[in-house]
Amino acid sequence: MSDRNVIDNLNCPLPLTPDEFVVLGHGSGGRLRADLIQRVFLPALGNEILNAQEDQATLCLERDFGVGVGAGAGRGYRLAFSTDGYVVNPLFFPGGSIGDLAVNGTVNDLAMGGAIPRFLSAAFILEEGLSFAILRRVVANMRDACLTAGVTLVTADTKVVGRGHCDQMFITTSGIGMVPPGRTFSIHQARPGDQILVSGTIGDHGMAVMSIREGLEFETVLESDTVALNGLTQVMLDACPAIRCMRDPTRGGLASTLNELAAASKVGVKLNEASIRVKTEVRAACEMLGLDPLYVANEGKLIVVVPAQDSAHLLNVMRGHPLGRDAAIIGEVVDQHSGMVVLRTCIGGERLVTMLSGEQLPRIC
Amino acid sequence: MSDRNVIDNLNCPLPLTPDEFVVLGHGSGGRLRADLIQRVFLPALGNEILNAQEDQATLCLERDFGVGVGAGAGRGYRLAFSTDGYVVNPLFFPGGSIGDLAVNGTVNDLAMGGAIPRFLSAAFILEEGLSFAILRRVVANMRDACLTAGVTLVTADTKVVGRGHCDQMFITTSGIGMVPPGRTFSIHQARPGDQILVSGTIGDHGMAVMSIREGLEFETVLESDTVALNGLTQVMLDACPAIRCMRDPTRGGLASTLNELAAASKVGVKLNEASIRVKTEVRAACEMLGLDPLYVANEGKLIVVVPAQDSAHLLNVMRGHPLGRDAAIIGEVVDQHSGMVVLRTCIGGERLVTMLSGEQLPRIC
Repeated sequence: MSDRNVIDNLNCPLPLTPDEFVVLGHGSGGRLRADLIQRVFLPALGNEILNAQEDQATLCLERDFGVGVGAGAGRGYRLAFSTDGYVVNPLFFPGGSIGDLAVNGTVNDLAMGGAIPRFLSAAFILEEGLSFAILRRVVANMRDACLTAGVTLVTADTKVVGRGHCDQMFITTSGIGMVPPGRTFSIHQARPGDQILVSGTIGDHGMAVMSIREGLEFETVLESDTVALNGLTQVMLDACPAIRCMRDPTRGGLASTLNELAAASKVGVKLNEASIRVKTEVRAACEMLGLDPLYVANEGKLIVVVPAQDSAHLLNVMRGHPLGRDAAIIGEVVDQHSGMVVLRTCIGGERLVTMLSGEQLPRIC
Repeated sequence: MSDRNVIDNLNCPLPLTPDEFVVLGHGSGGRLRADLIQRVFLPALGNEILNAQEDQATLCLERDFGVGVGAGAGRGYRLAFSTDGYVVNPLFFPGGSIGDLAVNGTVNDLAMGGAIPRFLSAAFILEEGLSFAILRRVVANMRDACLTAGVTLVTADTKVVGRGHCDQMFITTSGIGMVPPGRTFSIHQARPGDQILVSGTIGDHGMAVMSIREGLEFETVLESDTVALNGLTQVMLDACPAIRCMRDPTRGGLASTLNELAAASKVGVKLNEASIRVKTEVRAACEMLGLDPLYVANEGKLIVVVPAQDSAHLLNVMRGHPLGRDAAIIGEVVDQHSGMVVLRTCIGGERLVTMLSGEQLPRIC
């Protein structure tokens, strides 16, 4: 594929949004969401930290909080801060629930910034008529997920709205963690020659939720991969301080995350389809629903960009961790086709992997 | 009123919740909310910090984050962390909007703990079909409120749900601030003899929202008092380090906040109705709707408990600040009728002011 074609492809206009109204696609991990951020949020609220559009804000204790840490060991410590709303439908799905997602998702956003996640807040918006039994199950899932991730929920809020004014339950969690000195990661830091690794199979979470929603049945149950990744990131960072950046490919999937990386770092990304693992039943479900697994949400996987000389070592370390057993090197950063992701397909061709334009899986998390 | 009557009154059973389902009252600032917390949230998620049920969690940098601040000036610094969901209906009302509330409310929760609020997160849940024009207005209000309060919004998230699955827009903000060494406030710290002050008139916010919802018209427009109180708390704390605790009486109003205080500190509260200021038009609106201003939400007022010998000085300091011009001493902490709030009425009688039992003003914030 020539670069000329690639550019023509990217310059196609955004899908029309009728008269500037919010559509489901604005909640996707794709181009419409990016458009909403650029057109509505950043013009009003933009600042150096928000503009960076990382999954978490990183705040310096001395500079940003005025904490005088003197000449002590505290110098250089930073705080990571992140928030996410969870509106997944249905509330329970194979492998997890909105409660697991609300804890793991925010823990992962912190972990991707190199933070050690420590504390969570939770704000519940409940629909009148929700049963205590459902709420208790969700809260029990949150407790278990907190224990597993090693975080503590320290502050919470509950609002109730009338019947029909929300859909059972929405949860927003925010998290804070501490970033040890010396850890600085950013999607702006990928450099040509870097290798790209993913920690396992892709598409599991999205297809688990979709299979329930669509009533698909397979011999094997499709299970969400929802899990806290901070244990994995910890061993990765201990073994390989040269890591450039980590991201968890949630909404919009691997494709959207890598497009963001390519755009932010002003580099190209080359992917090798043969090394991207998709479970057989996930692939089958995707085919039945006409979905591309590259765009399907994950809730327990991460991608990591690392200089080439460290990639083999990092891969070994990841494979030695239970959450990274299926880790693989799936591509590399190149200095061609800046801002774009190109996939070398299993049959030897090349195709452009663009950002998700609309919304293929609403309310997936 | 004898203590016996008071106790009988408090022992009345909670309103029946049909078969353990969430009702609007669970979102109030009153007894049903306390019941939900005790029966659902704390059994699963309880820990030392959450159990304290302050408006914010206070976390020690050294103990809770492992930040070694050595012998430097950082020792003793703590971080305050708070979250609140905002579901106010309508989105815009005289004096403010959901955007103002979402910033000011969380800033105030931090300020009540003695923190200097610094950073906010925001998670938006948007209904498909919401116009960009409305969203832009709300976001502009958030920007202005952040500027006024001196806080920076550093991380955000947006989800979109289908038509009819939320009511236009919900916003959850979380905030973090730094608590300088030596500031420790708690609703468990009120002691008999302490004086109770409020920073101004009560009921303004709740009646501003209700007047719009109910189509009430008065000669003067009822305006919400939504405002960030961190400037006021700063001068109060500088002038009067002996302050025991501060609280902003939002949902459930002054009555519910003081009941929480009485219960947490195991003391009685005596209020003097004549010194509690209510604007004429707010009182008129309350009478038309059959509401008691003591239970109506405020979004720009605080109560403060202080040892008697400091109360006159603190009152002067508060009155010298634009947001405390109408401050007044409204009552005292006593060692009788522990856990209860008793009001000396303008006509000389006494009545028990219980916790709000149901929900008189749903979706007020």
